[in-house]
Amino acid sequence: MLAEAIARVPSDTADTLAENYHKTRGLTVALAEPLSEADATIQSMEDASPAKWHLGHTTWFFESFLLRDHLPDYRLYDERWPFLFNSYYEAEGDRLLRARRGMLSRPSVSEILDWRAHVDAAIEPLFDDPACRDLLALGLAHEQQHQELLLTDIKHALALNPLGAAMWSNAAPQPEEPAAPVGWHDHPGGIAMIGHQEQGFAFDNEGPAHRALLEPFALADRLVTNAEWDAFIADGGYRDPALWLSDGWAWVQREGIDKPLYWREGDSFTHSGWQPRHPDAPVTHISYYEADAYASWAGCRLPTEFEWEAIARTDNPSLDSDGGNQLDAAVSPLPRGGQSLFGDCWQFTRSAYLPYPRFRPAEGAVGEYNGKFMSGQVVLKGASCATVRGHSRASYRNFFYPHQRWQFTGLRLAKDL
Amino acid sequence: MLAEAIARVPSDTADTLAENYHKTRGLTVALAEPLSEADATIQSMEDASPAKWHLGHTTWFFESFLLRDHLPDYRLYDERWPFLFNSYYEAEGDRLLRARRGMLSRPSVSEILDWRAHVDAAIEPLFDDPACRDLLALGLAHEQQHQELLLTDIKHALALNPLGAAMWSNAAPQPEEPAAPVGWHDHPGGIAMIGHQEQGFAFDNEGPAHRALLEPFALADRLVTNAEWDAFIADGGYRDPALWLSDGWAWVQREGIDKPLYWREGDSFTHSGWQPRHPDAPVTHISYYEADAYASWAGCRLPTEFEWEAIARTDNPSLDSDGGNQLDAAVSPLPRGGQSLFGDCWQFTRSAYLPYPRFRPAEGAVGEYNGKFMSGQVVLKGASCATVRGHSRASYRNFFYPHQRWQFTGLRLAKDL
Amino acid sequence: MLAEAIARVPSDTADTLAENYHKTRGLTVALAEPLSEADATIQSMEDASPAKWHLGHTTWFFESFLLRDHLPDYRLYDERWPFLFNSYYEAEGDRLLRARRGMLSRPSVSEILDWRAHVDAAIEPLFDDPACRDLLALGLAHEQQHQELLLTDIKHALALNPLGAAMWSNAAPQPEEPAAPVGWHDHPGGIAMIGHQEQGFAFDNEGPAHRALLEPFALADRLVTNAEWDAFIADGGYRDPALWLSDGWAWVQREGIDKPLYWREGDSFTHSGWQPRHPDAPVTHISYYEADAYASWAGCRLPTEFEWEAIARTDNPSLDSDGGNQLDAAVSPLPRGGQSLFGDCWQFTRSAYLPYPRFRPAEGAVGEYNGKFMSGQVVLKGASCATVRGHSRASYRNFFYPHQRWQFTGLRLAKDL
Amino acid sequence: MLAEAIARVPSDTADTLAENYHKTRGLTVALAEPLSEADATIQSMEDASPAKWHLGHTTWFFESFLLRDHLPDYRLYDERWPFLFNSYYEAEGDRLLRARRGMLSRPSVSEILDWRAHVDAAIEPLFDDPACRDLLALGLAHEQQHQELLLTDIKHALALNPLGAAMWSNAAPQPEEPAAPVGWHDHPGGIAMIGHQEQGFAFDNEGPAHRALLEPFALADRLVTNAEWDAFIADGGYRDPALWLSDGWAWVQREGIDKPLYWREGDSFTHSGWQPRHPDAPVTHISYYEADAYASWAGCRLPTEFEWEAIARTDNPSLDSDGGNQLDAAVSPLPRGGQSLFGDCWQFTRSAYLPYPRFRPAEGAVGEYNGKFMSGQVVLKGASCATVRGHSRASYRNFFYPHQRWQFTGLRLAKDL
Repeated sequence: MLAEAIARVPSDTADTLAENYHKTRGLTVALAEPLSEADATIQSMEDASPAKWHLGHTTWFFESFLLRDHLPDYRLYDERWPFLFNSYYEAEGDRLLRARRGMLSRPSVSEILDWRAHVDAAIEPLFDDPACRDLLALGLAHEQQHQELLLTDIKHALALNPLGAAMWSNAAPQPEEPAAPVGWHDHPGGIAMIGHQEQGFAFDNEGPAHRALLEPFALADRLVTNAEWDAFIADGGYRDPALWLSDGWAWVQREGIDKPLYWREGDSFTHSGWQPRHPDAPVTHISYYEADAYASWAGCRLPTEFEWEAIARTDNPSLDSDGGNQLDAAVSPLPRGGQSLFGDCWQFTRSAYLPYPRFRPAEGAVGEYNGKFMSGQVVLKGASCATVRGHSRASYRNFFYPHQRWQFTGLRLAKDL
Repeated sequence: MLAEAIARVPSDTADTLAENYHKTRGLTVALAEPLSEADATIQSMEDASPAKWHLGHTTWFFESFLLRDHLPDYRLYDERWPFLFNSYYEAEGDRLLRARRGMLSRPSVSEILDWRAHVDAAIEPLFDDPACRDLLALGLAHEQQHQELLLTDIKHALALNPLGAAMWSNAAPQPEEPAAPVGWHDHPGGIAMIGHQEQGFAFDNEGPAHRALLEPFALADRLVTNAEWDAFIADGGYRDPALWLSDGWAWVQREGIDKPLYWREGDSFTHSGWQPRHPDAPVTHISYYEADAYASWAGCRLPTEFEWEAIARTDNPSLDSDGGNQLDAAVSPLPRGGQSLFGDCWQFTRSAYLPYPRFRPAEGAVGEYNGKFMSGQVVLKGASCATVRGHSRASYRNFFYPHQRWQFTGLRLAKDL
Repeated sequence: MLAEAIARVPSDTADTLAENYHKTRGLTVALAEPLSEADATIQSMEDASPAKWHLGHTTWFFESFLLRDHLPDYRLYDERWPFLFNSYYEAEGDRLLRARRGMLSRPSVSEILDWRAHVDAAIEPLFDDPACRDLLALGLAHEQQHQELLLTDIKHALALNPLGAAMWSNAAPQPEEPAAPVGWHDHPGGIAMIGHQEQGFAFDNEGPAHRALLEPFALADRLVTNAEWDAFIADGGYRDPALWLSDGWAWVQREGIDKPLYWREGDSFTHSGWQPRHPDAPVTHISYYEADAYASWAGCRLPTEFEWEAIARTDNPSLDSDGGNQLDAAVSPLPRGGQSLFGDCWQFTRSAYLPYPRFRPAEGAVGEYNGKFMSGQVVLKGASCATVRGHSRASYRNFFYPHQRWQFTGLRLAKDL
Repeated sequence: MLAEAIARVPSDTADTLAENYHKTRGLTVALAEPLSEADATIQSMEDASPAKWHLGHTTWFFESFLLRDHLPDYRLYDERWPFLFNSYYEAEGDRLLRARRGMLSRPSVSEILDWRAHVDAAIEPLFDDPACRDLLALGLAHEQQHQELLLTDIKHALALNPLGAAMWSNAAPQPEEPAAPVGWHDHPGGIAMIGHQEQGFAFDNEGPAHRALLEPFALADRLVTNAEWDAFIADGGYRDPALWLSDGWAWVQREGIDKPLYWREGDSFTHSGWQPRHPDAPVTHISYYEADAYASWAGCRLPTEFEWEAIARTDNPSLDSDGGNQLDAAVSPLPRGGQSLFGDCWQFTRSAYLPYPRFRPAEGAVGEYNGKFMSGQVVLKGASCATVRGHSRASYRNFFYPHQRWQFTGLRLAKDL
């Protein structure tokens, strides 16, 4: 069922905005299909949201910012629902406490799917409205982000079920070849052009394009693997404070951390339940603190977001920005043949998530999309196996708090030259 | 549908243990029927459990203590489920954290209903086993307790839904007559026989029967009403520390308490959603701290459990111990025509929940049923509109922590003579 | 220095109220004398108060309830200080948060001692005022309670100092003889007269005197010793949930409890620093949960407060209610030759701290002395090595929460006959 | 007394390292002199430390890293004290929990002053040891940092005293002239040399010197004043989420923030107690969140640390890097005649505290000085009225968490050109 869904994913060959719209909206529904009403309702922690809520929130986005604001005489499907499905837009008024999203046994998934269908039908006239193009593109990119969150949030919830509940029955694919020794992409330093500079959609936080000054450095040509992480553990990596940032060491002590999230002896939890962990697959579900400690242990460091992007913009055929196979049927990180920078897991940089020079948030409620989160978080680059194909790009800036690790997060080493 | 279910409730006319078993087990299922898979899965706080969990836990009780322990060659329906559905029996091994019960999107309600049917079929041979009679009676009384908890827990969860979700569509019944002025049952004091002393089942904490010495006192012949509580509020009852126990005042300040749970202006939340609150109906969903403060304000006090029981044992035809109409279709407190001590709401006593003289817990895991909770809680007497008919009796001891109020809790005043 | 102070302690031979007043007030100062300004200022937890605060609070009591209320034209020594030194009397207005008492580096101990002297001089005229006698007696009993708290609070603070800070240089005395095997005081049951029924001062919570009905029981003639507690530990007492109340087991797990407070290998912390722990001395600094678990392990139970008092009222010359040697120079529990019920440590009962029949708190602010704490706490009987001689009596009711153990708390077993 | 102390402060005219050592060490003692033993012992929050602890910790630094490591046969003054006075150096072994520093009623201030004298005498031979010069300079810079912390920590503690305790009796000086309208230092952008590049001591986090690329910008020539902050408050600045970072808004809501720390109507708390707040003095004791919200409200932004440093390195006689008048007798921010970048309060930048290119922490325990804190904090530039003269410089990087505001923190606006 997912394979079918993926075939409908937006791509460069999509002819029209309308086509992209329906493919994207359809994929969200397809992703939620294997979930029972109960699966789709539960919330495992405040950081995560129920699948049902993702279905509703993405619809609220289109209903509020497109239909309500741009379609004359449109009446809200249910006037009480914006309170339920507004995420964090202060300008949009009061809303359900984030920690209470798991209390939404009503409305049902079926009722929300009806709402989705209603909105998807009502929106047709706006595809040809030039004033709506940018907002529609934003809505689709927003929905793709929530597709990934839906997958990582439900993974977190299912992992807490002692039965090891699976969402899909097929086993996760495994690497077919051993991981190659690490090679390095060298960069001579100098002035690099950073930020969104191509045609097409980008989030506001990817701009303005601007220059950055780099010192000579090298970026690893592949991700750190599970086997390498095992060596870090075996060498006492989680017990040596000298390797850790002070906040990280406090986190390790307080939470009793001694391995990545979802590790249990030789197995890892996946959307297909507990599965043997392949030593040559990239390590995932680590925090920034862990990534930084590993890099110290390895005598390297994390790259800056500018270094990472500069390599991604290199004219190097092996760095396929398309990624090719994200959002696999099994949502499992797999080393890419072409060593793509995209597609296995988001990669921590040492860059704090801050505004680019001359950055200005958009006017109105959508101005709350990115700018107000520029504090306390770190930038991740790339894309993960749960990122829909075509969603990411060289200038893409993902961001999380340094302790969070329920996303498909991994690391790629860097060093000074 | 519930009316039908109630018709199947155990009563004195039930011919056999088997008949009681099937009526009780069937009622639990009937109570859960109006709930969606999502309703039945969510957990609103650590004190409450999902409806689905109650369905499973009551079944686990019969499977563990009857089938596994007494039916030769019985094999567990699913060996992983005891971990999920053991509540607090340390002797039965590890178990799911209480706060994680809301993560059980699997197994589904339907799977648990299959398990229930399996256990209900397998248990047939044990009805005629004399060694099992007491355990079966305990299991049924246990299941009846969870019927009440199922109702109060789901009420709490639905109340958190901003849509005001209802479980039943019928409106709650309202008192047909104004509350009468309070009258008093006088008692001359002296030695009273306390505790279970009749034929039939009782929990271990109701015994041994023993003597208690009472001073002359009087117990009100009806419960405090919503209108009376309104007067308490209007008189500044929630703002005057002189009325409150020190722990209670700290609770009021910390939690910002200024009215009973489920009150919102003139409405109260019920299983049928938000409904107008009738001034002559008994006040419910108050904590011990609130009950005690009200009694101080009214120049009275709470009764001891011994005083309450002594009145209940009086040869007074108006004190129908059967209650007559608990577990109404609408689960709503209604003043009883006969001023029964049973049936509207549990009534706080000022007695701490402690062992009776010579109390000994039973051997084995079921010995954990009551005794280990004899610390920090207070005794409540009577029965509520959510207590199944025939479940309670004069010696019955319900118990909760002084801050808890999600049960149907109210108060009946007492005074010294 | 302390020996001298103790010689000034009130006793039956004290001729006048004035004499008692000055002896008691002087003892408080003497107890604080070995403390530096810093020792007297720090607060180790919210339950405890700085020694300086005790010096001020006891003075506030006399200034507020005696001088201000009964001495015409008396003007407060400093109008800002009642805010600092009111403990919990709501009727006396706002006050410093309890958790902030450790921030009172000002006023200095010396300034507070000046205040004490001022109040002690100003109060002279009231000794002959019949309207003040009861309040003065209450003030002195109150001050004696704070003498004990001063000692237990500073012990807790000094114990947190990694240097093992001592308050006194003399070593704690040790038992001179091995503990005798436990004997039992048998009681035939029946109606006992409970509560204050003698001449002289008593707190309001000790009355009214009333009858209580007892079943036949026996009370151990000595306290449980350190050696016996060692056996409990060695037998896995802290690891077996079957021995514990549910709240107690949660406390053990949450706090990682595996021994009494102030135990460290073979040593215990005392006011004279870390000292070898004598196996035959009574165990102290245990919580109610621990006492209850030990009693279960020993196949016994805790007595009720009524049972304990009934034994204390027995005409038995060995039960010297005077205690004889409380408030030793070294404040260390020692088995009493006469097996007194008083003097080593407070003894847990299984009785919840509740009002006696017909109990009414006093009018006015002093009515907050006891009654409002009658929730969630347990009664302790006897007296400890830190209780001033003559302070306790058979009807005395001390009370603490079941998890607290920074007082000199121990246990005496009981059993049914 | 402080004026005298300040006259002994290190300056460029100090002839020798020994002279600097004794002046710096003496100033710490002078700063603590007005404090009572109790003042010097209390700890008001985990972020702050007792004055006594600062006296000990700075001495521990010299004893451990100089005397113990470089003076043959040196024996520790007290072997138990490193456990008390190690702050966070994991390589130096276990240490007292930070939250327990306020429990150190022992050792006394006097004992610590004896230790200081002992160390100050013993260290003489090392002044001529070339291997020790850098460590000695580090120790002195470290001690100067703790001088500022001693002042800000005791201010926080005294402010919690309801009596409004003062440390100094002289009133804080006030601005003599109204604040001038804001002018702007323009910068054309381009490559700037950043980081320590002069002779003399600098912390490791100030290097390596490296190039940074700047866009054209302007930096305000004075700090934001109290009057301007009043306008921000009056305009609803603390109630408009659109002005705030998401984390900042959550902080405002959670903590109930509506004004800077130490504001109370028209007064501010100072080391001289509560004093009228001058409208033309720079605003201080604000958090990063508040600084950022104010800048948004003012239509500006915070500078980056690179922009600030670039302006500070401009050949502009008005930008006296010496500051001239820090550590005033009254430790109160005053607008500088020369509009110095240094001397009133630390100024928030929007730069996250991260390592400079090719940064490597030093080997050994002192390598823990800075690097491990490079996560979650923001850089502040300049110096405050509590910074000793000569301590700061253009490359200096102070850093705090975005919610902290007990330092003398303020802001200077920036804007794009």
